Amino acid sequence: MAEARKITVLDSTLRDGAQGEGISFSVQDKIHIVQTLDALGVDLIEAGNPDSNPKDLEFFQLAQKLELGHSKIAAFGSTRRKDLKPQEDRQLQSLLAAETENIVIFGKSWDFQVTDILKTSLEDNLNMIKETVQFLAAAGRTVHFDAEHFFAGWQGNKDYALKTLEAAALGAVSSITLCDTKGGSMPLAVLSITKEVVAYFEGFCRKHSLSPIQIGIHTHNDCGLAVANTLMAVEGGVSLVQGVMLGFGERTGNANLSTVIADLELKCGMKCLPEGKIVELTSTVRRLAEIANISLDSSMPYVGTNAFAHKAGMHIDAVTKNPFAYEHIPPESVGNERVFLMSEVAGRSLIIEKIRKFDTNITKSSPVVSEIVAKVKQLEHDGYKFEGADGSFELLVRKIIGKYQPFFKLHYYKTMGEQSMHNGAACSFAQIKIEVDNQIEITAGEGAGPVHALDTALRKALERFYPNVSMIRLTDYKVRVLDLQSATASKVRVLIESSDSMEDWTTVGVSTDIIEASWLALVDSIEYKLIKDFEKKYKKFL
Amino acid sequence: MAEARKITVLDSTLRDGAQGEGISFSVQDKIHIVQTLDALGVDLIEAGNPDSNPKDLEFFQLAQKLELGHSKIAAFGSTRRKDLKPQEDRQLQSLLAAETENIVIFGKSWDFQVTDILKTSLEDNLNMIKETVQFLAAAGRTVHFDAEHFFAGWQGNKDYALKTLEAAALGAVSSITLCDTKGGSMPLAVLSITKEVVAYFEGFCRKHSLSPIQIGIHTHNDCGLAVANTLMAVEGGVSLVQGVMLGFGERTGNANLSTVIADLELKCGMKCLPEGKIVELTSTVRRLAEIANISLDSSMPYVGTNAFAHKAGMHIDAVTKNPFAYEHIPPESVGNERVFLMSEVAGRSLIIEKIRKFDTNITKSSPVVSEIVAKVKQLEHDGYKFEGADGSFELLVRKIIGKYQPFFKLHYYKTMGEQSMHNGAACSFAQIKIEVDNQIEITAGEGAGPVHALDTALRKALERFYPNVSMIRLTDYKVRVLDLQSATASKVRVLIESSDSMEDWTTVGVSTDIIEASWLALVDSIEYKLIKDFEKKYKKFL
Repeated sequence: MAEARKITVLDSTLRDGAQGEGISFSVQDKIHIVQTLDALGVDLIEAGNPDSNPKDLEFFQLAQKLELGHSKIAAFGSTRRKDLKPQEDRQLQSLLAAETENIVIFGKSWDFQVTDILKTSLEDNLNMIKETVQFLAAAGRTVHFDAEHFFAGWQGNKDYALKTLEAAALGAVSSITLCDTKGGSMPLAVLSITKEVVAYFEGFCRKHSLSPIQIGIHTHNDCGLAVANTLMAVEGGVSLVQGVMLGFGERTGNANLSTVIADLELKCGMKCLPEGKIVELTSTVRRLAEIANISLDSSMPYVGTNAFAHKAGMHIDAVTKNPFAYEHIPPESVGNERVFLMSEVAGRSLIIEKIRKFDTNITKSSPVVSEIVAKVKQLEHDGYKFEGADGSFELLVRKIIGKYQPFFKLHYYKTMGEQSMHNGAACSFAQIKIEVDNQIEITAGEGAGPVHALDTALRKALERFYPNVSMIRLTDYKVRVLDLQSATASKVRVLIESSDSMEDWTTVGVSTDIIEASWLALVDSIEYKLIKDFEKKYKKFL
Repeated sequence: MAEARKITVLDSTLRDGAQGEGISFSVQDKIHIVQTLDALGVDLIEAGNPDSNPKDLEFFQLAQKLELGHSKIAAFGSTRRKDLKPQEDRQLQSLLAAETENIVIFGKSWDFQVTDILKTSLEDNLNMIKETVQFLAAAGRTVHFDAEHFFAGWQGNKDYALKTLEAAALGAVSSITLCDTKGGSMPLAVLSITKEVVAYFEGFCRKHSLSPIQIGIHTHNDCGLAVANTLMAVEGGVSLVQGVMLGFGERTGNANLSTVIADLELKCGMKCLPEGKIVELTSTVRRLAEIANISLDSSMPYVGTNAFAHKAGMHIDAVTKNPFAYEHIPPESVGNERVFLMSEVAGRSLIIEKIRKFDTNITKSSPVVSEIVAKVKQLEHDGYKFEGADGSFELLVRKIIGKYQPFFKLHYYKTMGEQSMHNGAACSFAQIKIEVDNQIEITAGEGAGPVHALDTALRKALERFYPNVSMIRLTDYKVRVLDLQSATASKVRVLIESSDSMEDWTTVGVSTDIIEASWLALVDSIEYKLIKDFEKKYKKFL
């Protein structure tokens, strides 16, 4: 087998990715992102424009001190201003001041952008590109040229688009990246254009006795084709791919680099990362999501929590027989894992597998399995859904197999809410009476809405007996109306996600009364935590 | 210019889409989705398996009574069981009982799946396909065949994969869809395989004197390539595309049909929807997201709120000079709009258009327009969304332009809820005091949950003064949690859909208190009705 072709990977999370809505990085975030990308083995990290704001300048000062194992950091800027010499241009000076070995500059390859937006002559734009590259290369830097709007330029004025690349080549660039800046290109067009450009520059470099110049690709997802267009360009001969590891960026985002890398390595026989690193793809992406403070799309290819989730009963049966039946790759090959989702159509085998997790003695024929299956079916008919409600499912199983004890007894709760036109604000209150070991606790709480008030009151009542309750944080609260026919008298399903910084768990409650549905999910959440803690503490006695 | 090639569109939101995590539709949701897809002009709506659960059966009974303008509903099922004759197979009987003109059945095209998962002979599988198609066609149905795992099958055993299609063709199918069930195929492979299959079946149909059979494509997004693979198949000659309008589905989702349609119509010169319908794409997708109760990915191509959002100052400057500079299509062509994330000037023209609907004198420069725009922006910042809340939007405009009068004054409301372990049931009560024309009404109501109790009490109080209030039925009630960070103290948005059998209207309320949010939407709903009735009655005096 021929050796896999090496594709250079440039991540632009810190530059183009930062154009995404709601994306904003502190200097410390940027450092963490660089370290995470370096650990994965990304070749180039485009880290922003040192001229654009003080945060970026501070970052480059810190970045110089970082000890990276693999990655090189690149500063990003534009060609010189149309009315200045390179050495007079403050922006180019700050690019040099960033003291990175690699510098990426962008320039315009679309004649319309030159004449109508930049408002200069076509000839001047060529000089701007060539002189900028020359200036930075003369300072000893490895210079990369991003040909902005290259594909739109090619459609409008192919000769001129090529001339802009030639200007960069004659200025002594290391790589030229073709940018589909508006994201409007179709895959077969990208394939044929990149083929032509790659062949053209092989000839051009020979003719001008230049070292070979690497050709790259930079795509956007405006037509849902950013990944496909990147693959087409690689097929067309480019050897550098740009993107953002999580796919965010301006408008519809940049090419999702995690998908591109997995496709190229696992499907196209290319090499993007150092040997053995692809199994760290999922953990890398999840860490980046945490640093960027965004919730990762659960359906993201390869790395999403649902990328290998099976819901249909028939699919689950088949995957249990042979995962190859419904999985295009083994989840472990990118460090992800298989998930079976509970649902009204999922089969018995899934339930057994879940029960086995904490009672290995149970087999298919244990009578308790039928009992649990029947209970799950009945609850699902009532509107419960255990998909993703692992905490409540575990409690349900425990109750049936006898590994459960109640931690408190409820005497009553009452909630009160009122809104007055006189003072404007809505207020909610809850009163609760519980019993633990024959001791009564009556207390009350206030909150933003009756559920919040009830949550507050219940915790207050329980903390006297179980101080650990204070460790539980509710991290998510979801309401789904189930039966729309009867409108405000509808049944609702409430999902509550909780965390104690060691573990996350989700619980569910269903009722026509939203407060009761929330109450059921709240109680499950607290009981789940208390059982876990109890078992941890008394493990040796069990 | 040659006439655009017509591509048949099959939406599988209700079938394959329902396999997505967290997706679950009530019967009423399904009806609303069918109506929404029909209004857009989707050709075929794959609506689920009538055999799988009672909800689906109920849906098909209701669906028979729907009057659709364009779409045809298809029931979905599998080939007959390996050990039964078609007429003995309960699943096929229930497909017929669904009484749809179109039926989609799936069968296995991958030899490995036949022998190792289905555990039958290759020959028997061919009979299962042919006999099932024949049985359904003999009952007068238009039968479509989904060739499950076709692309994996082609790689493994090309001859057998083709034989499964031939079996369907000889059984008299109307269309054959090639499914990339595991989502692992690469675009150029899909292109060359579909080309070969399309050519092969042209020859096959001629040879066997069969009517031409339409070839279709069904892709999954496991490699981030579902849209690209669909486009490649169309390039290869298929004329039917399957997908899910919002792209959700098992694992990483199905081909996003809204992206596919826009790409094919606006980039590839094909025709997918009836003339002029593509401008409704964005509003359709957003309505579907509301029905499915999911938040639409803001970066979704064409239809996401950020699809035409510009953040970088340079891009905004250029777009202001000429939108063509950074937009691959005009946002209006898909009913979306340009957004400047910094400058917040979006939406104005949309708002003017809405105001003109009931005050034709208003122009762009009317000072009241700025006032309304500012109010809408402020409310949207607080979590309101007027897309789909036409009733509340009209009331807001009326309040600002002076075409509004309050119908009652609230003194207070109080809600109470309690749940007792002794008698089990949860109860809610509401007490209310209102004033109409200096007359006070104090009353109370009971209900399933505090919102229902409040609704009951408010109607009871108002009916004395406005008997028409009894005509309002609340037909839908939705809760969306807006701020997930603070869990049970989150802000919620409540949408209420009302009807008086003449008209439907939707109203919205936002608060951290779910009861207050519901109250705001309820009051809007009732006022909307009372204003309409008042204006109808006193038209001659106005």
